[in-house]
Amino acid sequence: MAKKLKIGLFGFGCVGQGLHYVLNNSTGFKADIVKIAVKDKTKERSVSKDLITFDKYEILNNPEIDVIVELIDDAEEAFNIVSEALKKGKHVVTANKKMLAIHLEELYELQIKNNVSLLYEASAGGSIPIIRTLEEYFDNEELEKVSGIFNGTTNYILTKTINEKLSYAVALKQAQEKGFAETDPTNDVEGYDPKFKAVIIALHAFGLIIKPEEVLNLGITTLHENDIKYASEKDYKIKLTPVIQRLPNDKVGVLVAPRFVKETNQLFNVENEFNGVIVEGKFSGEQFLQGKGAGSYPTGAAVLSDISALSHGYKYEYKKHVQKHASNFTNDVIVNVYFRYNSLIDLNKIEFDEISEKYNGGDYNYIVGKVNLQTLLNNRDYILKNKLFISLVNDTISLKAKKAEATVNKEKQLINN
Amino acid sequence: MAKKLKIGLFGFGCVGQGLHYVLNNSTGFKADIVKIAVKDKTKERSVSKDLITFDKYEILNNPEIDVIVELIDDAEEAFNIVSEALKKGKHVVTANKKMLAIHLEELYELQIKNNVSLLYEASAGGSIPIIRTLEEYFDNEELEKVSGIFNGTTNYILTKTINEKLSYAVALKQAQEKGFAETDPTNDVEGYDPKFKAVIIALHAFGLIIKPEEVLNLGITTLHENDIKYASEKDYKIKLTPVIQRLPNDKVGVLVAPRFVKETNQLFNVENEFNGVIVEGKFSGEQFLQGKGAGSYPTGAAVLSDISALSHGYKYEYKKHVQKHASNFTNDVIVNVYFRYNSLIDLNKIEFDEISEKYNGGDYNYIVGKVNLQTLLNNRDYILKNKLFISLVNDTISLKAKKAEATVNKEKQLINN
Repeated sequence: MAKKLKIGLFGFGCVGQGLHYVLNNSTGFKADIVKIAVKDKTKERSVSKDLITFDKYEILNNPEIDVIVELIDDAEEAFNIVSEALKKGKHVVTANKKMLAIHLEELYELQIKNNVSLLYEASAGGSIPIIRTLEEYFDNEELEKVSGIFNGTTNYILTKTINEKLSYAVALKQAQEKGFAETDPTNDVEGYDPKFKAVIIALHAFGLIIKPEEVLNLGITTLHENDIKYASEKDYKIKLTPVIQRLPNDKVGVLVAPRFVKETNQLFNVENEFNGVIVEGKFSGEQFLQGKGAGSYPTGAAVLSDISALSHGYKYEYKKHVQKHASNFTNDVIVNVYFRYNSLIDLNKIEFDEISEKYNGGDYNYIVGKVNLQTLLNNRDYILKNKLFISLVNDTISLKAKKAEATVNKEKQLINN
Repeated sequence: MAKKLKIGLFGFGCVGQGLHYVLNNSTGFKADIVKIAVKDKTKERSVSKDLITFDKYEILNNPEIDVIVELIDDAEEAFNIVSEALKKGKHVVTANKKMLAIHLEELYELQIKNNVSLLYEASAGGSIPIIRTLEEYFDNEELEKVSGIFNGTTNYILTKTINEKLSYAVALKQAQEKGFAETDPTNDVEGYDPKFKAVIIALHAFGLIIKPEEVLNLGITTLHENDIKYASEKDYKIKLTPVIQRLPNDKVGVLVAPRFVKETNQLFNVENEFNGVIVEGKFSGEQFLQGKGAGSYPTGAAVLSDISALSHGYKYEYKKHVQKHASNFTNDVIVNVYFRYNSLIDLNKIEFDEISEKYNGGDYNYIVGKVNLQTLLNNRDYILKNKLFISLVNDTISLKAKKAEATVNKEKQLINN
């Protein structure tokens, strides 16, 4: 039988309180939160003052505590806490995707070196058990692609702007009121949050350790009603979707960007704060998982599930990483995108390899075509600054195909005409 | 690191060949099939004759073999093989839902007694890792309901008859040609197969060991075009869905029956041979998982996933059963159904507690209302024999509410008028 764990909790915000509630209202699993470390000394809290501490070492140095649960916002302070806990031989559960993505390699090595377990199911996919499923169920299968909707906040905003025709500002405000979006929504709306999650998932799906700064994240801040109109006319919805795809020669391409999604795609009906993940396996075909991507209880339940797994001695084995699956991350790949631009300067700056559609309407101009992912990454700031908008038109990343010079010239002519 | 397993395989049909192919074409995981036991001595096979045996003891008594993989059709012979293997201290992987459902208690005890592992992810939900997810991820959470589409064959037939207006006979023939349906499709079309799966899932979701014969299974053999027309007019699709639901007082209700599914339900878009499972948790909310429910490679991949888990020492802990979750199975519950009948005799035989809709059109008569599940179970043969059709109108099972005698009498009047 599993032993009853003693938990030291860092952070008592939305998820921390959710965990506290779920733990105290679960019939199946019992564990005690023996201490909660928080920052703000003035805040009123719903738990006994005896439980609260402002000194992290009251938890880190307490030999009675088996498990550290880290649920604070600050990624760097979180890393200090988590790495110190691991070094002290304590198991850790965290939901901090930013910390994980930035320090993935160090955290992987700290686990091995100190023979401890670090679990983080709640960091990606909300209540969807995606990491566990990749680690334990698809460990023996070569995966082709993992894609999906990993951010409840932007999905909520996109649902409201596209289905209900709310303005971006109103939709964002609603998301904030519902507790899905933070006061500073940059992490979500610029696609950092889903990128951190994509980086974590890339490790469990393909064995890849990549730095977040190597991965392109385009968000929805420059979305214009013309883009929504374009998508609607073609019966597309716009979703912010990370794509992690295996390519020939053990290469893997990763990006996060808005995408036009057709009705036939599973993600089309993933609405509001829900998340959805599509896992494409060589043999098992297409798997789809959907669940709540935000909220106090769903995330609290995901954290508790990790705590329960710890009580049974569970640790990630990082099987794909150990097996050295597809280990060559590359941005030298081609993606198919819709690109709304302002002037020819933009088109000369962001050079397309191939153009299949072109529209020039004065105030509203776009092209659809193939572009190198590295080109987009190099020009990310330019795109944001000039309020240009990029959306994938499908979820396929491909290796660059060399084209005849003549074709390229012909396309340049097309652009300049 | 995991050790390389030596596998003794029973059966080399659709799934056995799928496993053989998937195993030999996986890069991540290596295991050897050292012997394959088959029945038919005359059949030509795609593997070396040295691998084949007609004597089960060549596998069962081979000390070199670590894992028995049982993939034969015959449930009783499968039970003989599996129970003998477990007694000999060998781990077993099986996909045989009928055997599992019938012998669940014995197989549970054999594992404990002999300290061996029996895994069967491929037995339910096709390539969806539902058992593992329930066992490892929702072990600490109180679940409210598990429902879904667990049978690829009937879902294929229903998709073709409802969306493409094919006749039942033509759709069944197509399913057989595609290898989804067997020559004798009774197990699928009468709902036995999804019932066996529901029985297995009830153990991992609620800790319940129930006998298949205690559970109602209504199938799609009596589906008439009038039923399809009724559903279509209301924008419903008809799906064959098991429902396993927690009720007050630790009770659980289980049944398998056709159901009218609205567009807002996740199962609406689960088409053809796909399976879908909805897991409703107290805290995590609604989870949805979809994947291929039939086919040689997807099922082979699910079996391989179990073999891989075995190589890491995995065994089910039956946590909900050990925790004695909701342990009172009951058929004394109310379900809301559409009931197409022929004559008043049918209505007097199958007595409804409440009627909300009534149509009498000579050749086509139906009522919609509440009926006791036990009443339906008692009259299952009568329903089939008289080609009556029952469809759930929602997925909610409720405990019986006592009604005033007057109301009952009024309804009896309504029926007889």
